[in-house]
Amino acid sequence: MAEAKTKIIIAIQGKVASFSHIAAMKLFGRDISLIECDTFGDVFSALSRGGAHAAVVPIENSTYGSIYQNYDNISKNESSLIGEIILKINFHLIAHPGKNVPDIKRVYSHPVGLGQIQAFIQNHPNIEFIEHDDTAGAVKMVKKKKLQSAGACASRFAAEYYGMEVIAENIHENPKNYTRFFVVTRPEMRKEVSQYMTNKEKQKRKTTIQFQLGEEAGSLYKALGCFAKRGLALTKIESRPVLNTDWEYRFYLDVLANANNPKFMKAIQELVSYTKHLKILGSYVRGEYLET
Amino acid sequence: MAEAKTKIIIAIQGKVASFSHIAAMKLFGRDISLIECDTFGDVFSALSRGGAHAAVVPIENSTYGSIYQNYDNISKNESSLIGEIILKINFHLIAHPGKNVPDIKRVYSHPVGLGQIQAFIQNHPNIEFIEHDDTAGAVKMVKKKKLQSAGACASRFAAEYYGMEVIAENIHENPKNYTRFFVVTRPEMRKEVSQYMTNKEKQKRKTTIQFQLGEEAGSLYKALGCFAKRGLALTKIESRPVLNTDWEYRFYLDVLANANNPKFMKAIQELVSYTKHLKILGSYVRGEYLET
Repeated sequence: MAEAKTKIIIAIQGKVASFSHIAAMKLFGRDISLIECDTFGDVFSALSRGGAHAAVVPIENSTYGSIYQNYDNISKNESSLIGEIILKINFHLIAHPGKNVPDIKRVYSHPVGLGQIQAFIQNHPNIEFIEHDDTAGAVKMVKKKKLQSAGACASRFAAEYYGMEVIAENIHENPKNYTRFFVVTRPEMRKEVSQYMTNKEKQKRKTTIQFQLGEEAGSLYKALGCFAKRGLALTKIESRPVLNTDWEYRFYLDVLANANNPKFMKAIQELVSYTKHLKILGSYVRGEYLET
Repeated sequence: MAEAKTKIIIAIQGKVASFSHIAAMKLFGRDISLIECDTFGDVFSALSRGGAHAAVVPIENSTYGSIYQNYDNISKNESSLIGEIILKINFHLIAHPGKNVPDIKRVYSHPVGLGQIQAFIQNHPNIEFIEHDDTAGAVKMVKKKKLQSAGACASRFAAEYYGMEVIAENIHENPKNYTRFFVVTRPEMRKEVSQYMTNKEKQKRKTTIQFQLGEEAGSLYKALGCFAKRGLALTKIESRPVLNTDWEYRFYLDVLANANNPKFMKAIQELVSYTKHLKILGSYVRGEYLET
C-alpha cells in the first residue's frame, strides 16, 4: 500500500474562500490544510513556530500599492520566497439563493472590498454597507445567521463554497484590479514545499533581493546598474525605512532571473560592494495572471 | 495707517496643537489661521476649493514609512510643493496639573501614538489605553471633560496649549522617530504663500518631481542616471501604482537642487525622453530637523 502523502499546511490571513485561500489553491491545489489567521503577524508566527509549511500573503495590489506590513514581516522573520501568483480581484454581491438586489437591506464586506464598490454604494442609497473582518467571512456570517435581507461583497468562490448565490456580478469599479501574492516559507523548508507546487516545472523565474545602501550619492543608481548593464530586467523596486535610523532605507528588488543565472550571480557579486546586509530572499516561478 | 497683513490660512489634518500644527507654526510662525480637517482628503479639498492658502501634511515617518495617501492626494489635485520640515516626534503622558502616574487609570491617544509607547503600556498594566482621533484632541478632551484620572499621550506643546501638565516625559520607544511634512499649495498661490514663510532666505534647496516610465528594461536606471551623471544627489525615491493600469508605477524623486539649477534643467531635458507625464511638483528650502 502506497504511503499517504501528508497534506501541506498553509497559513493565510482570513478565512476559507478568501482571496488568499484562492491564491493558495491555485498554487497547491485544493487538497491543503489551511490555518486561518486574524492578522498578518499571526501568519508569520504560524510559519516561524513551524505550525505551517508555508504562508500565502498579499504583497501588492495594483490599485492600492504595496502591502508594507508584509515586506516588513518578510524582513523581520527568517523568510524565504518560493512562489508568486497574481489574481484578478472581482467582487460580486452574494446573498441567499432566490434573492434579488431589491430584497437586500444590508451588505457586509472587508473595508477594502467596500472601497472598490463605491459606485454601487452610491447607486443603492437604500442599502446599508457595513464593515466586516473578511470578505469570505461576511458570506459565511450571512449564511450561518440566516440573514435573509443581507448580502456580502466577496468572490464567486466564496458564494459557491457556502452554497450562496451571486445576485449582482462584477460590482467593483476598477476593471484592472489585481493582487499579487507571495508564497513564503522557511529556508530549510524550500525543498519540501516546492514538491507540493503545481507550477514547479515552469521555467520563467524571478528572484527577490533585499539590501541597504551606503550613504554616498548615486548609490541606488550604481545598485540598479549592476542589473541594467547585464540586461537583467527589474519588475519592482520597493523601499522601506529601517527602524532606529534617521532615514535609511531597505530596498527590495524583483529581478527577472533565477538566482543561479550566471549574469545574476555576477550582478550580485558587484552589488555586494555597494551594499550592507544584502540578502537573496528567494527565486520562484514567475506568477501568472489568473481570474477568480 | 499701514494696511493690516491678512493672516495666512493653513489646512491640516487634526486639531490645534497637533504635530501638523506644530510643523505649520515652525514654517509660518504662530500667527496663522488654521482649518482643522478630519481627513487628508478634506485637507486637499480645502486647498483646491480655495479656502486655504496652503496645507501642511505628513508625507513620511522614519519608523512607519511613506504616507501614501498624501502622495496620491498630491497627484490627484493640482498641487505645488513649497516647503518641507522634519519634526522629531516625542510623546509625553499629559494630565491635569498636580497628578502623578499612579493617579491615571485611562490614557487616550491616536493609534499611531499608542503604537509608539508599547513598552510604557506593558509596564503599566493597570492603565487602560484607548484610541482617539487625534493626539492633541485627546488632551483637549481630558481637559474639557475634567477627567481627573485620565491622561493623553501627545506633544509638549499640546500640554502647554491646553494648560495641562507633562507627568511622564519621552515615553515613546524609538529615540529616532521623525516625521517629514510637505507644505502644499496651488501653483498660482506659490508667490503669495512663500512671502509668509520664515525660512525663505535659506539657500539649500530641493525639488520633487513625478513621472511615469515606459516599459523598456532599464528605464528606471536610465532615469536615475540623468541625475547621477551630473552629480545631483537623490534623497528619496517613491513609487505608487497608477490606477486602471496593470502594474504601471508613478515615481517620485527628491533631488538636492533648485529647479532653475542648470544641471537640474539638463537632467530634466534628458529625462523627458524616457518618461510619460513628467511633472515638477515644486522646489523648496530643504527642511531642517527640529525638536518638538
